[in-house]
Amino acid sequence: MRRGGDVVRFVTNNEHKYKEASDILGAYNIKLEWVPLPVDEIQSEYLEDIVVSKVVSAIEVVDPPFIVEDTGLFIHALNGFPGVYASYVYKKLGLPSILKLLEKTRNRKACFIAVGALVIDSHIFKIFRGEVYGEIAREMRGSQGFGYDPIFIPEGYDKTMAEMDREEKNRVSHRGRLFTQIGEYLAGKNIV
Amino acid sequence: MRRGGDVVRFVTNNEHKYKEASDILGAYNIKLEWVPLPVDEIQSEYLEDIVVSKVVSAIEVVDPPFIVEDTGLFIHALNGFPGVYASYVYKKLGLPSILKLLEKTRNRKACFIAVGALVIDSHIFKIFRGEVYGEIAREMRGSQGFGYDPIFIPEGYDKTMAEMDREEKNRVSHRGRLFTQIGEYLAGKNIV
Repeated sequence: MRRGGDVVRFVTNNEHKYKEASDILGAYNIKLEWVPLPVDEIQSEYLEDIVVSKVVSAIEVVDPPFIVEDTGLFIHALNGFPGVYASYVYKKLGLPSILKLLEKTRNRKACFIAVGALVIDSHIFKIFRGEVYGEIAREMRGSQGFGYDPIFIPEGYDKTMAEMDREEKNRVSHRGRLFTQIGEYLAGKNIV
Repeated sequence: MRRGGDVVRFVTNNEHKYKEASDILGAYNIKLEWVPLPVDEIQSEYLEDIVVSKVVSAIEVVDPPFIVEDTGLFIHALNGFPGVYASYVYKKLGLPSILKLLEKTRNRKACFIAVGALVIDSHIFKIFRGEVYGEIAREMRGSQGFGYDPIFIPEGYDKTMAEMDREEKNRVSHRGRLFTQIGEYLAGKNIV
């Protein structure tokens, strides 16, 4: 069964991601529909590869226009770990283990990267990328957001992303920057 | 370009795995050819899913009969981490980080699992599975083998798999058990 309509769909299992994206695109008068389907994704160290594999899976069952996205957290002192496997590592090890791996490490630099594909029709899609640099905190702080937010302090801030409400996080975060670009693009192109 | 011939091919990037498998199948008079091609694999917590995705990728470019394999190391106290991402985690974090995550942990239980698919022709493939239970050592020991061998002590042994030569490791290891089954199957079926 294919889905039809005049909204943009966001294919993700993660309701937090949907809510963040929905707020941002809402400011562009774009209605985002949540499609909580699992889609196959390949193993690769490159978010772009994974996103393209999600496009290929999703196009079989979801009508364009739709968005797929993938996020990685790259910690410099850990050679980029957990990288694209951030959600797997979060589920298996959790944040205390990440702090433990870094407990004697002075270099706390890290980078969150979100890559998204906007699938406009079955032949055209466009890739967007949002990044935020920052540091891994020495302890968990804050209860908002999700995932690694309690240990990630964006550059220029003294609080973690879990100490920000959704509006503030969206202004600074990788995903906020990604969906702002998508909103600008859609608004400029009058695609929806 | 497709590859033809009357040997069995092993599609893997890992020369250590090829040598182990070649020794075992050699005892069944099966000649194993190394095909060091990268093949796409999906993200999944199930080795079987990953192996099937490798079959789908490899069948496009390699003539049967061929074998694809995937291995995971599942550490009980880490909820199964690193699991199917063992090689990624090895490359990014290395063994000292695994020992650090377990430094105050008394439960050292772990399990190595190898799953392989023998692709007989473009319509038929068969899945095999080899397992070995054991413990994570408190320090690295031995210089043979590869990957996690220096920290894995098989049940019933007091040395790590890196303290065993290839013949001894093959008798006890997950991959040894996997390829012994494949050898028995191929010999019994007179497929090669």
